[in-house]
Parts: sequence; C-alpha cells; structure tokens
Amino acid sequence: MSSAEEIAKTAAAASAVLRPVSNEARNAALTKIAEILMANKASIVEANKIDLENAEKNSVAGPLVKRLDLSKGDKFDAMCQGVLDVAALPDPIGKVTFASKLDDGLELYRLTCPIGVVLAIFESRPEVIANITALAIKSGNAVILKGGKESLSTFTVISKLVREALAGTEIPSGAVQLIESRQDVAGLLSQDQYIDLVIPRGSNELVRSIKDNTKIPVLGHADGLCNAYINGDADVDMAVRVVVDSKTNYVAACNAIEGLLIQRGEALTTLLPEIAKGLLTAGVTLKVTPEIADALAKAGVADAEKIVPAEDKDFETEFLSLVLAVGAVDGVEEAIAHINKHSSKHTDVIVTSSEETANKFMNSVDSAGVYWNASTRFADGFRYGFGTEVGISTSKIHARGPVGLEGLTCYHYQLRGSGQVAGDYVGAGGKKEFKHEKL
Amino acid sequence: MSSAEEIAKTAAAASAVLRPVSNEARNAALTKIAEILMANKASIVEANKIDLENAEKNSVAGPLVKRLDLSKGDKFDAMCQGVLDVAALPDPIGKVTFASKLDDGLELYRLTCPIGVVLAIFESRPEVIANITALAIKSGNAVILKGGKESLSTFTVISKLVREALAGTEIPSGAVQLIESRQDVAGLLSQDQYIDLVIPRGSNELVRSIKDNTKIPVLGHADGLCNAYINGDADVDMAVRVVVDSKTNYVAACNAIEGLLIQRGEALTTLLPEIAKGLLTAGVTLKVTPEIADALAKAGVADAEKIVPAEDKDFETEFLSLVLAVGAVDGVEEAIAHINKHSSKHTDVIVTSSEETANKFMNSVDSAGVYWNASTRFADGFRYGFGTEVGISTSKIHARGPVGLEGLTCYHYQLRGSGQVAGDYVGAGGKKEFKHEKL
Repeated sequence: MSSAEEIAKTAAAASAVLRPVSNEARNAALTKIAEILMANKASIVEANKIDLENAEKNSVAGPLVKRLDLSKGDKFDAMCQGVLDVAALPDPIGKVTFASKLDDGLELYRLTCPIGVVLAIFESRPEVIANITALAIKSGNAVILKGGKESLSTFTVISKLVREALAGTEIPSGAVQLIESRQDVAGLLSQDQYIDLVIPRGSNELVRSIKDNTKIPVLGHADGLCNAYINGDADVDMAVRVVVDSKTNYVAACNAIEGLLIQRGEALTTLLPEIAKGLLTAGVTLKVTPEIADALAKAGVADAEKIVPAEDKDFETEFLSLVLAVGAVDGVEEAIAHINKHSSKHTDVIVTSSEETANKFMNSVDSAGVYWNASTRFADGFRYGFGTEVGISTSKIHARGPVGLEGLTCYHYQLRGSGQVAGDYVGAGGKKEFKHEKL
Repeated sequence: MSSAEEIAKTAAAASAVLRPVSNEARNAALTKIAEILMANKASIVEANKIDLENAEKNSVAGPLVKRLDLSKGDKFDAMCQGVLDVAALPDPIGKVTFASKLDDGLELYRLTCPIGVVLAIFESRPEVIANITALAIKSGNAVILKGGKESLSTFTVISKLVREALAGTEIPSGAVQLIESRQDVAGLLSQDQYIDLVIPRGSNELVRSIKDNTKIPVLGHADGLCNAYINGDADVDMAVRVVVDSKTNYVAACNAIEGLLIQRGEALTTLLPEIAKGLLTAGVTLKVTPEIADALAKAGVADAEKIVPAEDKDFETEFLSLVLAVGAVDGVEEAIAHINKHSSKHTDVIVTSSEETANKFMNSVDSAGVYWNASTRFADGFRYGFGTEVGISTSKIHARGPVGLEGLTCYHYQLRGSGQVAGDYVGAGGKKEFKHEKL
C-alpha cells in the first residue's frame, strides 16, 4: 500500500467515526485545540522563528516573510480565538432543509451532512492550518492538510499539538493529517475512492494542474480576474473611491480588480479623468485602449510612464500588482458581454445611480459576486460574516464565492417508513397515490 | 473551430441570453413546447416507429424495445403533461437563501441562479429528452443533449419541434441542442471553458470514462449498489416485503438492492428463512456465504439451483438481475462498516423495530439515501415529489440522490452598496466594524 493510499484510508476511516459525532463533542475538541495551542505558544513561536530564519536564508520576499510571522501583533491570539469562534457557530450538520410526507407513515427528510474527506492545499500563512482544521472538525469532515513549505516547522508543531488535543476527545486523531511534500499530493490525487473533495488555495497553475490530474471534484479559485464597470450616470466621487479601493487596497488579493470599463460618451470626459487621476495618485499603471488614451489626452491627464497602451491579452491578465487594463464600452449590455467573456467569474462591480441598470448587470453577469456601488474587496468570508473561510470558489457548482462551513457540507435523504414498498404505488405496479405533503 | 467548440459556444451564448429571462417567459416557452409536441403527435409517433423497426432489425432485447415505444398507453400524453407540470413548479431561480446587512446601506444577498451550460447524456427512453429539456429551461440553463442512439429518429423530430417552439419565445433556440454521435461527446468534454456541468445517465463504464476524460464537473450515478440490513428485531413480514420489493420490483433499476445483510444469532433461524423463501418464490438466485448456507440448510430451505456460494466480489457487484448477495453481520455497527466500504453510496435500508438502531444506521451510513423500514425503490424524483429528475446522483458534493430543478441551480452573491470601500473597515486598513445583521 502506498503512503498516499494509507493516508487516504486513515482519513476515510476517521471520517466514518467522525460522521455521527455530536456538535457538543466537536465543539469540545475545538476548545481543547484552542487551549493546547495557547498553552504551547512558546514552542509554536519558536518553530515559527525557524521558518522565518529559513525564509531569510532563502531570500524570500519581504511581504511574504511578514505574512509568515506568527508573533506579529495579536496574530497568535487571534488564531486561537478563531478556533473558538468557529466552535461558537451554529451546528452546520443535521439541519433539515426539506421534509415531505410521501404517504401516511412514510416521511422523507433532507438533512445536511459532512462531505467526508477533504484534501486542503494552502499557502504559507501559518494561521491557515488552524482555520481549516477548525472548519473541518466543526463540519464533521476528516481533512488532509498540505501547507506551503515556507511554514513547515510551524505547521508541523501545530499539527502535532492538534493531534495531541484530539487524543482525549471523540474525534479520531486521523481526522487531521498533515502531509509535507508535493509528492504526497500527487499520490493523493489518485485516491478518489477515499477523498471526496480537493480544495486548493494558491496559484492559478497549481489549481489547473490539480484539475488536470484528478477525478476528485475540485473546489478552487483558478483566477481572480475581477472587473469594474462605470456607467455614465455614476457619482464621480463614488466611482473614484470604489475603483481605487478595488484596485489598490491589497493588490495581491484575488478580489482586486484587474480590468476597468467605462461607458462611452460624456463619461469619458467627466468620470474617466477623475478616476484616472485617483488611480495614478495611488501609483497605478493604466494600460489603456487608444480611445481611452485619446480621452485622457484631451482631458489633460498625462503620465508618459504610467499611461501605456493596452493589448488584448491585458483584459484577461491577473496582474496582482499596481496595473489596471482600461477600456470603453457602449453601455451595460456590452459591459456584461465583456465581463462574461473575459472575467474569471469571481467578483465584478457596477457603479451606477440607476437601480434598473444595476439589476440588469447583477442578473446577467455570471460571477460568484455581482456588486453594485461597493468595492470588490468585500468578497471575503470574514467580511461576509462567515467567521473564516476555506477559500473563495470560482467553481460553478456546489459552492461559489467565499466558502465557510456550509461549503463543507452536503446533504442526504432519510426516508422513515413503516414497511412501505414501491410496488403498492402508482408508477411501480400499484394503485396507491403519493401525498407529497410538506412537513 | 471544431464542431464541438461551435456547439459549446452556441450554448454559452444562449445561456447568457437565458440567464435573466423571467419565470413567466420560461413557462411560456414550456407551454409552447408542450403544445407543439401535442400538435405533432403523428409525426413523432411515425419517427418513433422507425426507431422501433430498426431496433427489431438490430435484434434489440424485448424489454428495451418496450421502453422505446412512445405510443404505448398514455406515454405520449404523459410526456407532454410532464413539460406542463415542470412549468407549474415554483421558480427555482432568484430565491434569496441568505441575506445580511454588512453595514448601513451595504446589503449582501445570496440568490439561486442557473448553472449555465449543462451537457446531458442519457439513455434511449424517448420521453427523457422532453423531461430534461423542460427542467433545463425552467432552471434557466442551456442544455446540450445526447440521447441513446436507439431513439435517434424520435429525438431528432422532438428536438426540431422544440427549436421551432422556442423560435417565438424569449428563449434562444441555441438553448437546446441535440448532438448525434459519441464523437461529438468526446469533443465536448474538452470544452470546459463553455460547459459547466456534465450529467451522464447510463452505464457505470460510461460515467467512469467521462470522469477520466474531462475537467468539467460530472454529476453522475456511477453505480447503484444498494443494500438492505435486517436487524434481529425486525418484523418478519415487513422484512420480507421490503427486501422482496427492493430486489424485484424492477431489477434493472439503480435503486434495486444487490446485497442483503442479516444480523447473526436468532435472526438466522427466524428472519432469514422467511426472507429467503420470499426471494426464491420471486425467482431470485441467492449468492450466500457459508454461514448463510448452513442456516438455510438447517431451516430446511433448499434449492440447489437458486442457492449458490457467494464470492467476495459478489458484495461489490451490481447484478441488475434476479441475483442477490447474502451475508451475516454481528449487528448494526458491522452493517454500517460493510455498507460504507462496499456500497456505492446510493441508497441503503435498515429494517428494525428500534428507532435508536435506525438512527444510528441513518446517521452513520454515508449514502445519498438512508432508509428505515421502506423499500429502496422509493429513491426516485417522481416518488420524492420533484416532478421529474435529471438523474440520481451518487456524487458527494453539489447534489445527491434524485436531482430535480434544485440540482440544476447554484447561487451567487449580490452586494448592494452606496459607495463603501474595504479600506474603511477593520482588517483592510480601517476602523469601521461590520454589523452582520440578518435581514
């Protein structure tokens, strides 16, 4: 048996034990995890220092090092509190979402249930291992974790402590397994018999390559190619604020915009120059179509270095930096068509003073998030009020947008009878009719 | 551009037009489809005759020919009525399933929406094309249809009429496309840019081979390996009825049982002989473990031809015929473990007079349907009250069990703001707190 198969089988066995465990017992385990993490702050921070030293040795970029540092500010305490916060959320399991009386003494219930075994592949931020562990246990799933190698020491200590914490609880320790190498991931992707869902967080290439190499369903954000469309009737200050925040609040985030569309006509002389000035002041390089270049020149907005010609591919590029593609469209219809064609179906925003135009945009743009007059940066589990998130999904089925506990559940049907057989009913040989009364 | 790419692009373009269409307009299109089908009964039945003649020429098996015949009984009228029944169902699109006030003037809504483009691959029953077309249009999805080749003439006429019916409606005719060959399917499976979901109905091999050859999510039932477990305290008459109906009501169905487990001890002398006699009378061959063979011999139940030794693989075989694997287990825990290991997570039933034991079974068996004292044959969209179904899913995410309109929808988030930017709020550089009040 390969090591990957062993890991997957262990997770599946743990999932079977975990499935019927009560919310109280799941919460007790989370409380114990939070306690053991708090009690072992010193050894976790020490392991984190090793990761930081290695990062320095390997010349990891400054902003990334900052994200690795668990001792910064209240990050450690927030991580532990996060586990307790998840415990405090309502039980996501066993919720009745449909109930129907098929006939007297024959009742059908649809209840939420855990998915089973989740393989989570995530980046290097050390607190993410605690977030995902908490969400997995709370939702009754076994999880196999693979974190970015830059935080391996920290992950190893935290995962050892999590397993120690689980030892005295109803949750089997196999419910949380940490794997260390990319090789292990490759092996696990063929374990579709045991693993029910892969959640990759990370680069586009990572997500694509995972989809190419597994039969297991993948819930990933392959891209964060978000767009803003400014309708001609938009309030100018609002348009500037929303566009600048959407682009610059955190350029490396998947919910930052990469494309800006402005309605042709008056808006090119009234809205465009102000938005462009706001973006240039914030340090953004504008990749513009000839039409936008002309309009900016006419309005006297000039910056030879930061206003450059756009190529077609710029409207399909996730810059993740202070670069924005800018073009013009005839109106909301063309904006919808452009976005449905070029965006990654993550989050797209319209700025307009017309509710009718906004509704047209929101009902026609096929993205996980469709916004009206608000920054795309709100697309986030914490901001949506989900406590935390396992990721932001650009999949079209199961779960879209920020994925919290609900995305880690599915449902099953319970039929409670008193000896009924199909052969007595219409359609299967009999005469009895179904009642189908809502319960 | 390949023909597959053209078909996929046409569907995606139609999906974009269909997405915002109102429920009234979708219903009007369905009504027109039902009318045009009724008005053209003669030409449809004529085409169906060609399929029947070809089936006879090609020596298609009798039961299959019967399923091809659209002129039998009220089948044709039922097909047309089915389209109207789907129209009469509540609108599955635009339902608000979550609403939260993030802050004053910043409201988050989660609404159901169409998935987009669905590729449906189904068997030869001619009425299925009408069922799936109706469900797809009602749920705002474009659909590409590939039906079994035995009904090609019928499908071709029906699909031509459907497109004629759509001509005068808000639904673009590209929303329903029929493809004819397996080659086309192969080409479409690489169109993950345009197709959002594949729903295959058919053989195990078909579903597996599709999963192997596409990055598109697949919602399929790969197997119908259902089991019945008889606890020692079961009522004997009920056990006999439920087991016999589950096995014999329609042996070729995916919701028929293929395995039977009986609790060791007294039940082997009280329940087993009666159940075995019921099954033998119904013509079922029993593949039994040595323990079951002994117990039957002791009880004087003998049939040299129909009681034969089971091999291990029989407990993982979908017989789809009058054959059943029979074994003994210590009790509900072992039954749960056996089923979670060997079943296909479709539908499994316990017969017991103890609610506690039933609950243990239903909370621990990881199948789409977990039944107590009722035949597994109830696992069906019509019997569940969903009107009709696109299939029965054994996937672990998105939709499980009989899939009706809901399984053809997903959701998106609408955020309605008044110029808010993330930078003003905690976590993204600002001081404002989120309200997260339920709306």
